[in-house]
Amino acid sequence: MIRDDDAPILLTPGPLTTSRTVREAMLRDWGSRDPAFIEMNRRVRDRLATLVAAGDTHACVPVQGSGTFAVEAVIGTFVPRDGKLLVLVNGEYGRRIVRIAEILGRAHAVLETDEDTPPSGGEVASALEGDPAITHVALVHCETTSGILNPLGEIAAAVARAGRELIVDAMSSFGILPIDARAYRFVAVAASSNKALEGVPGMGFAIARRAALAASAGNAPSLSLDLADQHRAMEGNGQWRFTPPTHVMAALDRALDELAEEGGPEARLARYRANCRALVDGMRALGFRTFLSDNLQTPTIVTFHMPGDPNFAFARFYELMGARGFVIYPGKLTRRDSFRIGCMGRIDADDLRRAVAAVKECLVAMKVRSGAPA
Amino acid sequence: MIRDDDAPILLTPGPLTTSRTVREAMLRDWGSRDPAFIEMNRRVRDRLATLVAAGDTHACVPVQGSGTFAVEAVIGTFVPRDGKLLVLVNGEYGRRIVRIAEILGRAHAVLETDEDTPPSGGEVASALEGDPAITHVALVHCETTSGILNPLGEIAAAVARAGRELIVDAMSSFGILPIDARAYRFVAVAASSNKALEGVPGMGFAIARRAALAASAGNAPSLSLDLADQHRAMEGNGQWRFTPPTHVMAALDRALDELAEEGGPEARLARYRANCRALVDGMRALGFRTFLSDNLQTPTIVTFHMPGDPNFAFARFYELMGARGFVIYPGKLTRRDSFRIGCMGRIDADDLRRAVAAVKECLVAMKVRSGAPA
Repeated sequence: MIRDDDAPILLTPGPLTTSRTVREAMLRDWGSRDPAFIEMNRRVRDRLATLVAAGDTHACVPVQGSGTFAVEAVIGTFVPRDGKLLVLVNGEYGRRIVRIAEILGRAHAVLETDEDTPPSGGEVASALEGDPAITHVALVHCETTSGILNPLGEIAAAVARAGRELIVDAMSSFGILPIDARAYRFVAVAASSNKALEGVPGMGFAIARRAALAASAGNAPSLSLDLADQHRAMEGNGQWRFTPPTHVMAALDRALDELAEEGGPEARLARYRANCRALVDGMRALGFRTFLSDNLQTPTIVTFHMPGDPNFAFARFYELMGARGFVIYPGKLTRRDSFRIGCMGRIDADDLRRAVAAVKECLVAMKVRSGAPA
Repeated sequence: MIRDDDAPILLTPGPLTTSRTVREAMLRDWGSRDPAFIEMNRRVRDRLATLVAAGDTHACVPVQGSGTFAVEAVIGTFVPRDGKLLVLVNGEYGRRIVRIAEILGRAHAVLETDEDTPPSGGEVASALEGDPAITHVALVHCETTSGILNPLGEIAAAVARAGRELIVDAMSSFGILPIDARAYRFVAVAASSNKALEGVPGMGFAIARRAALAASAGNAPSLSLDLADQHRAMEGNGQWRFTPPTHVMAALDRALDELAEEGGPEARLARYRANCRALVDGMRALGFRTFLSDNLQTPTIVTFHMPGDPNFAFARFYELMGARGFVIYPGKLTRRDSFRIGCMGRIDADDLRRAVAAVKECLVAMKVRSGAPA
């Protein structure tokens, strides 16, 4: 067992189950402008940038708040006021980027595919050819709505060929799926502390091209969410402009140690894949059907069609799972009727097998014969 | 001794020294959409609102990030796009509000007084009479730049008499100085988790008038920092819209228990006053001179004129204090040459007396005869 306490297991899109040692890193207070914290800040930023093979061309710029804060900061900082953003949508997080563009007053277009269908490089190329006003393209690498993998490689290539800039929402993929700054041209990748990095929630960050950061001074429509200004200040004195979540940073610093100790992103991806396999195999044996075909499924969160048995009541299922020590996501995000079980965080395949055993007990308790959809 | 470990003491404007029990509250992971966390969220929001005697008229709306995020969220949510903000400035945090208004594109005027001089109700009344376009007034209750107390009561009265709306940045005062929603008319008071409440950094909040929240839908130029939208969602299902800093919230929940156990804001204010007294008396005995007269000094942070002795080097002083276990603010914010020592957080007068003894040792080490200014 990889877990080190007996608290409820979070099988959600995040926040996730963390290690006790990551949480214990929060037992100390830090002066946010003290050399010891400044050194921690440098160490964390360098290691995050290294995870996407960012050399001197890119920098890690952290920002307080959730992943959405980081995504909004990226859109506001890098899409010029007279720019235009093409948003690739196949789930709730793509739709959220559209909403951000609307609120920030940035011109935008949408290329939408079904929630179980990734956009292709060809479709993106056509859209860019058809609209020369588009300056930036936003892609959600792994859409947490369903758990679908969107093809970063071919889309990055299409965007680069068309001479436009790519923004990647890598919330669920950062730290496990390959994102290589040398192989893929992007202006910024946004992610957060509390997904595959297995830190606690409270901060996001962007790995952004230094040239774009320098060119974006004064572009952001926000002080707090201005990554160019945050970067300028941090390069100057190593400090956050405004009070950082010091304990969250200390937890992330420790979480990055533990990522390295585990063997890095490849080893963590292998663990999540085993988690996902145990979950999907077990659920299928109970009759459940996955929303996505296996080739599109990331080992982050799995969406299942709602069972057709009239005795199945999701609210009751959520409660019964909770009583057995498993917190799942209390609702659906996809447009079709479904529910989700996560497989990320400080958990292993045995935890997922126990979760499936709990699902089986819940079905019995509800007198549901099978998880098969209608 | 009130402290419960031997980590360095943070004598800064924040983050501050917290209790070990507050930090231990972060040792558990929480599902952010789970009923147990929703209940914690309700409990924290209710208790924060009660601290300013907010009844049914006001609600607490939390927001991820630092205090500045909360202030920006308040300005963006409540000042209409065709409104005009009068900012009362006598320090860095007032200047920051001006910068926020500039970046958000909100028309604004500035009423500036010296950093050791509060604005008066009469001056505010004149400014409002002279500019009927002003819809909102922003006041920093306790300017952390110097530690000065600005007169909330008479300014709130002047703003109310003129039929305008008041916004209060109560970052350093919330939880100790009286802010009574029944006595002072305000549209929103902004504060954060990590000052007098003695939680850890990572979230801010506003106590805002419900009618203004309802009237402000769609006004904010940000998704993440839209308090009206955050409030609407939270009233609906008790959840944060985007991943909350769950551990920071758990720490604040515990910190609010400890505020009540201490005897509430009055008892905490008394402790901070004793801290401030011990600090000021001790420093004066070493020749240091305070930047503010005693009647304007809040027991939050004390600004001292830089010593005139040519042997005094601030960077060395900072380092020597750090070696003795005291982290002070590594620089000045006032326009005149000064430094600051905080007296808030989970510390008591004995800690401040020990800090003064450390200052004395540092002076000896630097061969500085007296802390007297030039």
